Amino acid sequence: MSELRWDPLKDNWTILSLGQGRRPQDFWQQHEAPPASFCPFCSGNESHTPAEIYAHRPGGSPPNHPGWQVRVIPNKVPVLGIEGELDNRAEGLYDRMNGIGAHELIIETPDHETQLADMTIEQMTEVLKAYRARLLDLRNDSRFRYIFIFKNCRVGTASRIRHSHSQLIAVPLIPPLVATELNSCREHFQRKERCLICDLIKQERKQKERIVSDDGAFLVYAPYASRFPFELMITPVEHKHDFAAQTDQQLKQLARTLRQSLQRIRTVLRDPPYSLILHSAPPVHSRWGRPDYWAMLPFNYHWHIELAPKLTRMTGFEWGSGFHINPTAPEEAADFLRRADINATVKHDS
Amino acid sequence: MSELRWDPLKDNWTILSLGQGRRPQDFWQQHEAPPASFCPFCSGNESHTPAEIYAHRPGGSPPNHPGWQVRVIPNKVPVLGIEGELDNRAEGLYDRMNGIGAHELIIETPDHETQLADMTIEQMTEVLKAYRARLLDLRNDSRFRYIFIFKNCRVGTASRIRHSHSQLIAVPLIPPLVATELNSCREHFQRKERCLICDLIKQERKQKERIVSDDGAFLVYAPYASRFPFELMITPVEHKHDFAAQTDQQLKQLARTLRQSLQRIRTVLRDPPYSLILHSAPPVHSRWGRPDYWAMLPFNYHWHIELAPKLTRMTGFEWGSGFHINPTAPEEAADFLRRADINATVKHDS
Repeated sequence: MSELRWDPLKDNWTILSLGQGRRPQDFWQQHEAPPASFCPFCSGNESHTPAEIYAHRPGGSPPNHPGWQVRVIPNKVPVLGIEGELDNRAEGLYDRMNGIGAHELIIETPDHETQLADMTIEQMTEVLKAYRARLLDLRNDSRFRYIFIFKNCRVGTASRIRHSHSQLIAVPLIPPLVATELNSCREHFQRKERCLICDLIKQERKQKERIVSDDGAFLVYAPYASRFPFELMITPVEHKHDFAAQTDQQLKQLARTLRQSLQRIRTVLRDPPYSLILHSAPPVHSRWGRPDYWAMLPFNYHWHIELAPKLTRMTGFEWGSGFHINPTAPEEAADFLRRADINATVKHDS
Repeated sequence: MSELRWDPLKDNWTILSLGQGRRPQDFWQQHEAPPASFCPFCSGNESHTPAEIYAHRPGGSPPNHPGWQVRVIPNKVPVLGIEGELDNRAEGLYDRMNGIGAHELIIETPDHETQLADMTIEQMTEVLKAYRARLLDLRNDSRFRYIFIFKNCRVGTASRIRHSHSQLIAVPLIPPLVATELNSCREHFQRKERCLICDLIKQERKQKERIVSDDGAFLVYAPYASRFPFELMITPVEHKHDFAAQTDQQLKQLARTLRQSLQRIRTVLRDPPYSLILHSAPPVHSRWGRPDYWAMLPFNYHWHIELAPKLTRMTGFEWGSGFHINPTAPEEAADFLRRADINATVKHDS
């Protein structure tokens, strides 16, 4: 059984994910296991996964059979478990909450070899529609304060699963870094009656030196205080707090921007491992009585995607201080990415 | 030239360490370079390093020659540079500060093969005395708000430098995670007139299940909300805010505890890579006029060492949410470490 635990010194929550309950010997083998020869994510192997929650089946094929383009399934080894009621209590100076949540896998393609950057605009749009559909569905469950969608490409355990997929984890708390962003946006709005991220977009467009692409609908730039080399921020230019409120047309435009950004990173950095995360406004439920949740009404937030190739590794200085060390100036990173010859790597076009 | 940059959305500082100014091609070669055959940290190779800042020379040998047991030198490729005046200014919505700091390497032994866990108590005490001496010296420089001492053993770039060493980075800001801990301690003290960490120690000693060792002077326990599997907290039982105020006798007792903790981790986890960090109260300078620094007078802090084997890797979920995921319950980790047969690995005794 998983649980969340709060540390009064660090004022932070850890997820103890005890489904696997890893003991010392599980850590002994530090050499990487080879990729499994059998892939349950491939088309035709649907019976080897839990039953699907969502699928895009253009030909109308039956659930859990081939014919899908995008397929969402529960994770067999979830970080948090879906069953049970929230229980939240003190243990002396500490706090704990039982580990209620959802953990889903979004299989982005039936084909084992196609990576996100290889997809057609249409295929990638379907992936983004799956994100939207799962966000809209899970926000009906008032146990979940936040629904977090992310992707690891050859990062962590995802290095053993080559088949292109994203993940969704619904959590019973607003994640600490999202809470910080929500606070920053709320404070800025209270002071200035403007959205902080809209203001950042205006400043970036004026200064220009960190912009990678700008098609009028979506802006891609290297953040001023980038934590990682070649980190990118992808954000709608127009103020939108909620990713799930994007229209099909807007998702198609986003797919175009995202694909191009992935191709730029692949060209400039020679296909590095990367992570991608979606930050969108949290859902709000009328049955949550806590006044601070009402004060956190998220209309002054502005959704965005953060994309970071994983080129450096966290060390003791970073986890002990909270500073990130980045060896590449974002202005220089933006310049390399802006000038990338992305046609060199485009495999599919549309 | 390095600089620190502040992000108004994430309310956090990044260190842009541009001394090396890494460009895309520097990241292409992701296979690890083999350890260099020549080691400038070894006894006899002193002329290949910058001039020493500190050394323990029991026989009174001259500086920058053999005969030392512990030797401190400036890092040739510092994260922050020592020259210049602090300059701190806004750039529109952003903030920047030039990257003034110090970056030193504490070479813990003249011998290439001896690791920290192998040292005699006397040798390890000398390492801790070097920490203390450098903290006391650098706090005279009022440009530095914090002096951070840490060690990476086979983590990050330290994986290429096998010769046992620690690092010191002095920074012109209180690091974010240290600031959080200082705030937690101050708030607890204001409310209860007691030290938060003293209270945590009392609770851990009462609950017992997370304690690894307790010799009356230093307590070693697995934190309730451990962020990493087998993470340990090492803290003096008596209230002490400042590591640098420890006596020789106390440092010797700490060396005994630290060595034993390292040996426990080595036995149970088969010599894993690890990081170690020292959290001590920041220096206070009368010439700093800012009232919040005075409110942060650090006497209600309680210094400690955090020790974490590096067994898991940060992925998109963790860097995007701020949650840590830990697959091992700290109660179970403490049990394995407590029962470790440390005599099995002790190579040197004293």
